[in-house]
Amino acid sequence: MKEKILDYLSKEHDYFSGDQISKHLGISRQGLWKHIQELKDSGYEIVAVPHLGYRLLSCPDRLFPFEISRALHTKFIAKKIHYFDYLASTMNLAMQLGMQGEPNGALVLAESQTKGRGRLGRNWFSPKYKGIYLSLILRPRIPPAVSPVLTLLSAVSICEAVKKVAGLDVQIKWPNDILIHNKKIAGILTEMNAEVDKVNFVVIGIGLNVNNDKKSLIAQATSLKEQLGQPTSRIALLQELLRRIESNYLVLEDKGAGPIIEKWRNFSSTLGRRVKVYYQDKHIEGYAADIDKDGSLLIRKDSGFIQKVSSGDVIHCR
Amino acid sequence: MKEKILDYLSKEHDYFSGDQISKHLGISRQGLWKHIQELKDSGYEIVAVPHLGYRLLSCPDRLFPFEISRALHTKFIAKKIHYFDYLASTMNLAMQLGMQGEPNGALVLAESQTKGRGRLGRNWFSPKYKGIYLSLILRPRIPPAVSPVLTLLSAVSICEAVKKVAGLDVQIKWPNDILIHNKKIAGILTEMNAEVDKVNFVVIGIGLNVNNDKKSLIAQATSLKEQLGQPTSRIALLQELLRRIESNYLVLEDKGAGPIIEKWRNFSSTLGRRVKVYYQDKHIEGYAADIDKDGSLLIRKDSGFIQKVSSGDVIHCR
Repeated sequence: MKEKILDYLSKEHDYFSGDQISKHLGISRQGLWKHIQELKDSGYEIVAVPHLGYRLLSCPDRLFPFEISRALHTKFIAKKIHYFDYLASTMNLAMQLGMQGEPNGALVLAESQTKGRGRLGRNWFSPKYKGIYLSLILRPRIPPAVSPVLTLLSAVSICEAVKKVAGLDVQIKWPNDILIHNKKIAGILTEMNAEVDKVNFVVIGIGLNVNNDKKSLIAQATSLKEQLGQPTSRIALLQELLRRIESNYLVLEDKGAGPIIEKWRNFSSTLGRRVKVYYQDKHIEGYAADIDKDGSLLIRKDSGFIQKVSSGDVIHCR
Repeated sequence: MKEKILDYLSKEHDYFSGDQISKHLGISRQGLWKHIQELKDSGYEIVAVPHLGYRLLSCPDRLFPFEISRALHTKFIAKKIHYFDYLASTMNLAMQLGMQGEPNGALVLAESQTKGRGRLGRNWFSPKYKGIYLSLILRPRIPPAVSPVLTLLSAVSICEAVKKVAGLDVQIKWPNDILIHNKKIAGILTEMNAEVDKVNFVVIGIGLNVNNDKKSLIAQATSLKEQLGQPTSRIALLQELLRRIESNYLVLEDKGAGPIIEKWRNFSSTLGRRVKVYYQDKHIEGYAADIDKDGSLLIRKDSGFIQKVSSGDVIHCR
């Protein structure tokens, strides 16, 4: 109902009489008043003027589920949203919820994380109301070995959404760093719960620096705000991201990994470059020739020999 | 302390004076009396005769952690035991505990399960005090693709433990059914929580029919009791199983999968036979030629072509 009231009040920057709204939405004046009070408590500036009615002045910068759901138009992604002002880690909760049978596409969303996690046990700094910190539960019918393509899919979806909403060109550094001008804007962490031969569920975690101020970012990181010089609507960006994930997921189901990998190649800043890859306790150097359909990087060494690396940290040499 | 009191009382089938025991264990008479009461409450028959002392008459058929730990002598397996009279599923709890950081080797043990789980969402019938139902949390440093070897390792360990404690020959039907005379005596379920390129932890679930009566078993299943005509000590069997898992795990860490697969081959009832394998919606028929190092079955079809199957249900043709 809050969603509908906001839809109504957002139609025009004008006053709407309580009678008019109640009638249209089929609720009592008393019920409407109660919802308006709750919206005001949540940070919506709504004025009520006798004989004129209600007017929406401003919306708070919050990723409220009813805001995300408004005009989202997805089939299964984020049909269920678990929203928190803060969490230790959206990954931890999503993995728990996955085990309790949460449906394909369920979303865990937090305004901040106290122990945001990155790949290989690293931290993800998650200051309040500045970024997008989400974990998405997916139940693809794929063997565990195919799951890396979901990381590629997420990376592609982030690039597409940032391009569309913020107009910025984003690149992917293998395996899953999202960069603008060589600084990290987003990270992806993919975890799965699987039997040996069957994925029970996968959780895609995404951390995206949106309105972080420059001074709160480490040297290797950036935010959309730093790049644009102005804030970006986190709601609009999150919605576009969710839509892109869904459409890419449907392509994956329908046509396999091919089209996703093709898109990934186009966003890649790693392919075609000389790279050094640190993995386990080793490193290799060579030419980043291509990406394999399981997400591995194919490196052509100076000897001409092609080596496949399934994970590691890449340094672009020049 | 209960463990030590039982050790002491088990030394001989005789009376031990309270003074003697208290002195030896360094506790007060009052403390000893309290522990003895608790043991009696747990089902231990202990008589106390004035001027003679305490005597242990019988132990209950329970997998109490202090019974399992007594003389277990493992380095890391079952150093921590979570024991329950019943659980929905030891797997569910172990996966939860794994996420909360339980150490390598932690054991979840239940006397019965209300929703015991098997492979691919199947049930595992878990009647109270009849079988061994456990889930073991392991933190191997291996990539997800190597995790199937842990299922092979568990299968081998079960065969070794049953042979040693019950003197019965057990066979493995690929991928993870443990059979005696073609009837199922145990099942294994391996689940993992993993990043794309790193296993966070694996949970090995084992259900083993020990003292189940024939009438409570389905036609395709059997128990050690049905085979032997008498009950087997679940404690002794569980301890041996845990020791075998540990020693095989150390071999795996030290020498890789080779020795485990070699043992697996020797216990296999599938290799060298004509088989039909049903997987996904398909099936193939052929000669079960070998097992691959990732646990896949290699089937030589009549065309001579060798096909690799990573999971499925096998029917032995003759």
